[in-house]
Amino acid sequence: MKAAAGDKDGSVPKTMKAWVLDGPGELRLVDKPLPEPGPAEVLVRVDAVAICGTDVEILTKGLPAWIEGGLPFHKNYTPGHEYMGTVAKLGASVDEFKMGERVAVEVHAGCGRCERCRMGMYTSCLNYGLNYGDKNKGHRANGFTTDGGFAEYAVNHVNTLVHVPDGMSDEEATLIVTAGTAMYGLDVLGGLIAGDGLAVTGPGPIGLMSVAVGKALGAQPVILTGTRDSRLNLGVRLGADHVINIRKENPVEAVRRLTGGKGVHYVMECSGAETALNEAMDMVNRGGRICLAAFPGERVPVDLAKLARNNIYLFGIRGEGNSAVHRAAALMAQKRFDAKLMHTHTFPLEELPTAFRYFRERIEDAIKVVVKVSR
Amino acid sequence: MKAAAGDKDGSVPKTMKAWVLDGPGELRLVDKPLPEPGPAEVLVRVDAVAICGTDVEILTKGLPAWIEGGLPFHKNYTPGHEYMGTVAKLGASVDEFKMGERVAVEVHAGCGRCERCRMGMYTSCLNYGLNYGDKNKGHRANGFTTDGGFAEYAVNHVNTLVHVPDGMSDEEATLIVTAGTAMYGLDVLGGLIAGDGLAVTGPGPIGLMSVAVGKALGAQPVILTGTRDSRLNLGVRLGADHVINIRKENPVEAVRRLTGGKGVHYVMECSGAETALNEAMDMVNRGGRICLAAFPGERVPVDLAKLARNNIYLFGIRGEGNSAVHRAAALMAQKRFDAKLMHTHTFPLEELPTAFRYFRERIEDAIKVVVKVSR
Amino acid sequence: MKAAAGDKDGSVPKTMKAWVLDGPGELRLVDKPLPEPGPAEVLVRVDAVAICGTDVEILTKGLPAWIEGGLPFHKNYTPGHEYMGTVAKLGASVDEFKMGERVAVEVHAGCGRCERCRMGMYTSCLNYGLNYGDKNKGHRANGFTTDGGFAEYAVNHVNTLVHVPDGMSDEEATLIVTAGTAMYGLDVLGGLIAGDGLAVTGPGPIGLMSVAVGKALGAQPVILTGTRDSRLNLGVRLGADHVINIRKENPVEAVRRLTGGKGVHYVMECSGAETALNEAMDMVNRGGRICLAAFPGERVPVDLAKLARNNIYLFGIRGEGNSAVHRAAALMAQKRFDAKLMHTHTFPLEELPTAFRYFRERIEDAIKVVVKVSR
Amino acid sequence: MKAAAGDKDGSVPKTMKAWVLDGPGELRLVDKPLPEPGPAEVLVRVDAVAICGTDVEILTKGLPAWIEGGLPFHKNYTPGHEYMGTVAKLGASVDEFKMGERVAVEVHAGCGRCERCRMGMYTSCLNYGLNYGDKNKGHRANGFTTDGGFAEYAVNHVNTLVHVPDGMSDEEATLIVTAGTAMYGLDVLGGLIAGDGLAVTGPGPIGLMSVAVGKALGAQPVILTGTRDSRLNLGVRLGADHVINIRKENPVEAVRRLTGGKGVHYVMECSGAETALNEAMDMVNRGGRICLAAFPGERVPVDLAKLARNNIYLFGIRGEGNSAVHRAAALMAQKRFDAKLMHTHTFPLEELPTAFRYFRERIEDAIKVVVKVSR
Repeated sequence: MKAAAGDKDGSVPKTMKAWVLDGPGELRLVDKPLPEPGPAEVLVRVDAVAICGTDVEILTKGLPAWIEGGLPFHKNYTPGHEYMGTVAKLGASVDEFKMGERVAVEVHAGCGRCERCRMGMYTSCLNYGLNYGDKNKGHRANGFTTDGGFAEYAVNHVNTLVHVPDGMSDEEATLIVTAGTAMYGLDVLGGLIAGDGLAVTGPGPIGLMSVAVGKALGAQPVILTGTRDSRLNLGVRLGADHVINIRKENPVEAVRRLTGGKGVHYVMECSGAETALNEAMDMVNRGGRICLAAFPGERVPVDLAKLARNNIYLFGIRGEGNSAVHRAAALMAQKRFDAKLMHTHTFPLEELPTAFRYFRERIEDAIKVVVKVSR
Repeated sequence: MKAAAGDKDGSVPKTMKAWVLDGPGELRLVDKPLPEPGPAEVLVRVDAVAICGTDVEILTKGLPAWIEGGLPFHKNYTPGHEYMGTVAKLGASVDEFKMGERVAVEVHAGCGRCERCRMGMYTSCLNYGLNYGDKNKGHRANGFTTDGGFAEYAVNHVNTLVHVPDGMSDEEATLIVTAGTAMYGLDVLGGLIAGDGLAVTGPGPIGLMSVAVGKALGAQPVILTGTRDSRLNLGVRLGADHVINIRKENPVEAVRRLTGGKGVHYVMECSGAETALNEAMDMVNRGGRICLAAFPGERVPVDLAKLARNNIYLFGIRGEGNSAVHRAAALMAQKRFDAKLMHTHTFPLEELPTAFRYFRERIEDAIKVVVKVSR
Repeated sequence: MKAAAGDKDGSVPKTMKAWVLDGPGELRLVDKPLPEPGPAEVLVRVDAVAICGTDVEILTKGLPAWIEGGLPFHKNYTPGHEYMGTVAKLGASVDEFKMGERVAVEVHAGCGRCERCRMGMYTSCLNYGLNYGDKNKGHRANGFTTDGGFAEYAVNHVNTLVHVPDGMSDEEATLIVTAGTAMYGLDVLGGLIAGDGLAVTGPGPIGLMSVAVGKALGAQPVILTGTRDSRLNLGVRLGADHVINIRKENPVEAVRRLTGGKGVHYVMECSGAETALNEAMDMVNRGGRICLAAFPGERVPVDLAKLARNNIYLFGIRGEGNSAVHRAAALMAQKRFDAKLMHTHTFPLEELPTAFRYFRERIEDAIKVVVKVSR
Repeated sequence: MKAAAGDKDGSVPKTMKAWVLDGPGELRLVDKPLPEPGPAEVLVRVDAVAICGTDVEILTKGLPAWIEGGLPFHKNYTPGHEYMGTVAKLGASVDEFKMGERVAVEVHAGCGRCERCRMGMYTSCLNYGLNYGDKNKGHRANGFTTDGGFAEYAVNHVNTLVHVPDGMSDEEATLIVTAGTAMYGLDVLGGLIAGDGLAVTGPGPIGLMSVAVGKALGAQPVILTGTRDSRLNLGVRLGADHVINIRKENPVEAVRRLTGGKGVHYVMECSGAETALNEAMDMVNRGGRICLAAFPGERVPVDLAKLARNNIYLFGIRGEGNSAVHRAAALMAQKRFDAKLMHTHTFPLEELPTAFRYFRERIEDAIKVVVKVSR
């Protein structure tokens, strides 16, 4: 049985256990003071948190903001951004959520005052990372530029919270943000619509979720490409009409064949492979659209003539956005797909390093590895 | 010569002169303490403020929020929302504006956390008016739900400020927000584009600005309808290709004739006349769009069958929105139209009641009456 | 067993049975020569055709085009626009469809050369009805401005045909165009998205289909209003989360209650009731959207102030449009809802007058009455 | 004085002079029979035709369709796609244009029946090039897949014609299609709006037109980059606020400096340089948009991580599209910019090879070289 998330009088402990990252690979479990929610913020008692590929990058290389900005590693920073939990304390003016309600998170709260935020593009906030000191513009990227969820408690802006549907397990709820990222990709593509063809390249968590969400929205056919049959089979269970093992078959030829030579309307690129964009341009029809949810680390050769000649539109995303996480939560509440299939392993918070190892080394075919905060 | 807006050490007076409205018609000039800008807010030393038709309604009937919400009149509330001035003090985290810069305002700062604000539709904020007490969601409608500009100083959220272009007079700068409303109307219509026909019905300030902005964006033809030749002639100077005095000519027939029987693509309805919407539906072509920037006080008969059969889209706006005020300021900085033509009278702040009388009774053909704060 | 739709050598009979309308109420079954498909056209052997409310209006009052245009009734005109059948002959250049394939229709083929068609808004074609004589611009509204489907054969432009999914009955396939109209309504509303609230007012065929399609797209909640419990119960089976019998409960209050006071994001108005638009404006939240798929015959009082103050967008549609019929067919192929539930009665072609009577008088609670062409 | 374009009785000569291309470099002036306009087509008496960079590619390498499709060179094919002239004969059903009216052309007429055409994306027609034989889907790309304007007469679908404004010279009218391409690029970018920053990279004809059109639409600032001061100076006269000679200054640093470190909202890439896209991604702000109107011949290294991390949207275009040519014609009719500045040389039709040489070798700083058909 769980401990109370916060009594009616708002009592919560003064300290909490939290993992902190001091430098590449330097992950420590410490006791930290509980953070205090400000106006429009909520203190969330973390119940479960999933590991994302980006967490591995942060653990091994440091935060993108540190690297891009040349900043030294923070001391005492807590990563983790795919978490869910229970409302434990309300900041001033919050009535969107109630004490004791279960919530899942999205990553980005924009500053609300730059040009992009004013357009609703808060994941492209021009004040990214500015949430401290004299220049506190209020931007937050949970687990990236602020403390995240590998801890017993975390503070969240109300804009980064969605209600967890009744009857959904903690583990499944950690996947809402992943589904939201897939949904956002399909959204920025101009609105995937029922009957349009969708190819998803790369069966990682976002790719698998793109299959599930695309199918739920009526895409037809939904084609998934990848290298491992176990992942592709999971794609079928999540809604793929066709899967292509690119070790056995040329994916461009296969997509062309499966669509009667026409190609698909949309490609969600989730592999990060060097050749993926050029292949995607051969998979879409003229006027088609491609979303990059993954990307190679280095510059890669791209056939820009094909992009221009075929009126192809290319979109890049940095995670979820708009109301995509809310929409994804709605689809999951309606049980349009079985996200739980992606959850493979669970560890207690204390065993986070082991959890990371399972995820990184894909031990026992690990996909989504969840850390539960036992109490 | 003007007094300093605020010394480098930020010194401003402790009190200011301000008009306050205690009830319908009960306008008093008082001394008030200077308001203090909070985080993301700026204290503006008001230099000039124009009178809008809505101000007259507020003065005589009270605020819409009071009427709709059944609230009693505030005591000590200061109206006025078409103002400009000089940055006199910066709240925490503000670096978007500098001390001493000239700024003009827009009316609405959304809460930034409701569904509409998150989409960028902050003038449709679902927390409209909630900027006080326990439920302070941060929504502000300057001069409507918060103190406005008929005073020496006013506090503004940075989202409601734009830079005043160099070389633009204070009087002209008070018109930026009106141009922004016209721009927003043309925007929500789906993007007026060069070469499309535009009819503007009603040559009040928003109608005249719609002519100017529509022409600047390349609309062709731009047709203005009204009852007074002096206003219509002004419309010509602001860019109308054709004007129609509806006392002399049937406006629907005239629009049809001027467009070779085809009708226009867009109608901006700025008259509030009872028959205006039905006439607008006869002016637009099939698939055309109509924006209501004005409306009758009572329910009026509307031919909905025509709307459905002709695939007409109808949009209502509540003032400016999106980045429309910024866009309008850019066009005015580029001198695409001569907004100054609409400014007819100036009075000192002390003579606000006289200024209201000129505006309301259209004395000497008054259009935009501006109150200057002399120092 | 059905006769061949057309032998491989394209042989079809020289004449066919067809109902023709000479004037209001003057419906006759005659023998007509078979029409010949031109370039980009297909001859369809009609297998089944459903009766629509508009057919009743045409039968009793004449075609809108006749009434609006003041034209006399055509002699020999064949109504009927919700039909499906089998490809019996291909016009020049057609390879989009093959002999013997089953197809369902949509109503409108635009001229392809006016401004609206060039934008993709072919149901708003500016050359509506011009498909004869010197001014043959190629516009076709099947069963409205050209001969329709109450006959053994009908000619269709390829743009008005969709493939019927395998395993779908003829009767169900006649409902694709109705689902397409519902889909188009949800589309022009700006894209209904998963998790948004939808109220559908009026449980006629388009209203019921709007429930089904809205639910399939992830709307939440889907609320249906009406006067007859049998229809409302059918709405539940098609996906409504809540139904409101407006004889027993105020629909505005009910929608507000069911949405926690927030209202819905979208209203599809399918009742044509005089008060429906004003009620819809009280059902949607600020910035919400309303689509009129039905409308009262006379002008009705509308509260335009509410529309403007609440930034409400109002859209009118004239049937299906864009790719909505294709999308609807895709959802039905994927069995996202059970359209068959709406089909209540079947009659042979010869008994069309009886079929009309069942539909019009709602005998045995008739909803969709289908006429089958027996061979 | 010009000869009649066609007498009132429609008399035109039986033959005409026309340049034909038999193979790479094999350009001959021949006598050809006059083509006959079909339904929805117009015979245009060509008065002037400009040379485009693509013409040079066709002349030297052959048509893209030949190369991509592996087809042999047509014999007797007439290139040329930037022409204007006078209506000399009307095909069946044409009343959009009258005999003797002056018209300019756009390149693409879509088939009107594929998915993209039905969406209004006719330049992405899925039946590109299919305008002959059994598969005549009606697609036309004037001067590419059908005979073009290096001739005395040419046939055009009405969808590819716009009226030439009164008082505009023949030479200037040949530039409408170029302005239309620039306009389309700014359109697909999501609608350049007043006040947004625009960088145009590459001062060729489309780049210069992008400067002119962007400025006319209110972009601020408009920045042009290039290598030759003469072209950059011309850019200033067409509306550039700033020009950057990339031989003297790093263009990315310059754009950043000129925008106060913020970058621009849009980049129109018109240089085709290998590094252009990567530089463009450093010029736009987060969430910004880039349009490729030019492209390198070979695959080039692209930093896709930057594209994804910064939510950049990348669009490719194949020329004009939507109503962009109509919009451009409207702006030119309103004299919003002086397109004539780009016209540098004129030759008679007989001297087409010399005209090509001037254009290709940039003799006397040639920009737009026009061939006039003298009579």
